[in-house]
Amino acid sequence: MGTHSADEGNRSTTDLQLIDCDVHQMWAHPDEVVQYLPDHWTGRGIDVPTTPWPSPVGLMRDDAGPDSGAPAGSDPDMMCEQHIEPYDIEYVVLNATGMLTLGVTPNEHYAAALASAQNDWLVEHWLETADCFKGGLVVAPQAPHRAAEEIERLGDHPDIVQVQMASVGRTPYGRREHWPIYEAAAKYDLPIALHIGPEGMGTSPPHTPAGYPSSYFERHALTNTSLMGQLTSMLLGGVFEEFGTDLVLIEGGFAWLPYLRWRLDKDWRGLRDQTPWIDRRPSEYISEHVRVTTQPLPEPDDPDHLRYMFEMIDARETVLFASDYPHWDADDPRLAFPPLEDDLERRIFRENAAELYGL
Amino acid sequence: MGTHSADEGNRSTTDLQLIDCDVHQMWAHPDEVVQYLPDHWTGRGIDVPTTPWPSPVGLMRDDAGPDSGAPAGSDPDMMCEQHIEPYDIEYVVLNATGMLTLGVTPNEHYAAALASAQNDWLVEHWLETADCFKGGLVVAPQAPHRAAEEIERLGDHPDIVQVQMASVGRTPYGRREHWPIYEAAAKYDLPIALHIGPEGMGTSPPHTPAGYPSSYFERHALTNTSLMGQLTSMLLGGVFEEFGTDLVLIEGGFAWLPYLRWRLDKDWRGLRDQTPWIDRRPSEYISEHVRVTTQPLPEPDDPDHLRYMFEMIDARETVLFASDYPHWDADDPRLAFPPLEDDLERRIFRENAAELYGL
Repeated sequence: MGTHSADEGNRSTTDLQLIDCDVHQMWAHPDEVVQYLPDHWTGRGIDVPTTPWPSPVGLMRDDAGPDSGAPAGSDPDMMCEQHIEPYDIEYVVLNATGMLTLGVTPNEHYAAALASAQNDWLVEHWLETADCFKGGLVVAPQAPHRAAEEIERLGDHPDIVQVQMASVGRTPYGRREHWPIYEAAAKYDLPIALHIGPEGMGTSPPHTPAGYPSSYFERHALTNTSLMGQLTSMLLGGVFEEFGTDLVLIEGGFAWLPYLRWRLDKDWRGLRDQTPWIDRRPSEYISEHVRVTTQPLPEPDDPDHLRYMFEMIDARETVLFASDYPHWDADDPRLAFPPLEDDLERRIFRENAAELYGL
Repeated sequence: MGTHSADEGNRSTTDLQLIDCDVHQMWAHPDEVVQYLPDHWTGRGIDVPTTPWPSPVGLMRDDAGPDSGAPAGSDPDMMCEQHIEPYDIEYVVLNATGMLTLGVTPNEHYAAALASAQNDWLVEHWLETADCFKGGLVVAPQAPHRAAEEIERLGDHPDIVQVQMASVGRTPYGRREHWPIYEAAAKYDLPIALHIGPEGMGTSPPHTPAGYPSSYFERHALTNTSLMGQLTSMLLGGVFEEFGTDLVLIEGGFAWLPYLRWRLDKDWRGLRDQTPWIDRRPSEYISEHVRVTTQPLPEPDDPDHLRYMFEMIDARETVLFASDYPHWDADDPRLAFPPLEDDLERRIFRENAAELYGL
């Protein structure tokens, strides 16, 4: 759990109004999801790439698994008791553990079927069991037309608040082959959410052109690169301009955003002949359409550096609180943040998410 | 040419003491270099991957090519007259155009031979013609033992100030197969310099796991990822700890460094069981051993944001001025920078480089 310097932070829960934009639910057993698959796909459980970077600390909080031995995050009641009620969280946005690598599965037909099964499970086992649960509709980016059909199928469910895709698919997300997804998402006014995880797995190239990182530590530091690539592709490809799409970048940090905002703005002056469909400076699109989640929150020695960072990236509009419960490095909203101006704190902890998701 | 907001900057040259850490020399004709190759490699000129991302503005300043029609940067006298003398530059560090992609050539034997030829040309045609020229010794990272031999061959030349490698090779640079390079470089007290360029070319994976960028604009925004990968690999692999290597990261920006410093420090607390050879916080190694060049200098709307950024990345120790002459987006030292504190300005424009290179 993230903690900031000892003499700062330490909010009481009653100070905070919270929407948690990244909580991971899990099935107790794969059959919970497999039951929704067409028969011809049911033989092998759920077969998507799993991480080849073992973590020395595991991936989940040891205390977050039910006594039954089922995975952490698989019991809605326990999630409420352990996380949602103690922090008095108004809504959590569920992003399913176990489906983050669906986008790098080579078989796009299987990926699309699995996404639909996952969404049926999400609706029945989670969204319809408590008012605080909101969910991301999982789609397979490597099958764009199937993804659009899935959005048509469930996009108007009142508790579906975004379309969730793996942070990497087969090609960068700004390219035209993905536009049916954005057209459907726009019809239902749903943001596109990308969650890091599948970089370097399945059909994905490594995290950087330097090659595959060695350790979980090295890999964990470089999960942001997929988000840099997708943001740049979607912006310069014209997705924000064409569809008014909002893009949520989850768990890949944000302290790289000054680099991209400034570089894109400077290059736009000299190179925009290549993107005549981009009418405004790239940083304006980013402030208007791109949202980033906080966990894992950086903890610079000087808390002012985090405040400068928030200023540089227009955090009053762009930053959303996320805990990443029940992962090992989840952030505690009472401890992780240094003191912030009241208005900025309200924007990050609740209002930016409420506006984005219409809550 | 970079220019900052109209009412700031505008130094006169006499105010500045300058060392320019990234200037690109070029051969007038490939035969200048080919003449130094073993006979069996001379048949095809110089055959390394070239960029597949055409730039709408070209790659070089239109006014930097000699009247003969030879490439920009190929005439030492013209470089002096156009760049070095007008800005009163004390030293320029030469990083050869045309050899940046040598590291992604599949044939490591050819790459090593070409590196040696390039270095012979560098010494005879440049370093021995003017006192202001300092040079990077090009080596082929995909042939580490040949690279070490090349450092042994020319590493004690008084005008060789660093070992220059492509920003991407066959595997991340922290891995043990590259250690013979660092051992040799340490013997001659030479920093390792990585220059962006070959990402996504030859044997290199794309810039990010999202896939190949489409336009030169998109590619230009994402050249930093290779440097993020190599810095992380070398730090966590133990290169700084083992050899005291200094690492110079050229032309890939620096405003992503807060992300990496903070993320690595935070993760080190939880994950350092995987890297027991790293005794100190990662950011301490970065401040001590990693240097970044300025061009293309970011130009945020609020110049204070650049000043904050310099504070966050410990610029008094880590940032080196570079113009990138004669490239299209070269920075003019009199115009590109907002006013900085005198001491910081001296460190960036001259002293950090003088200390690093022993000038």
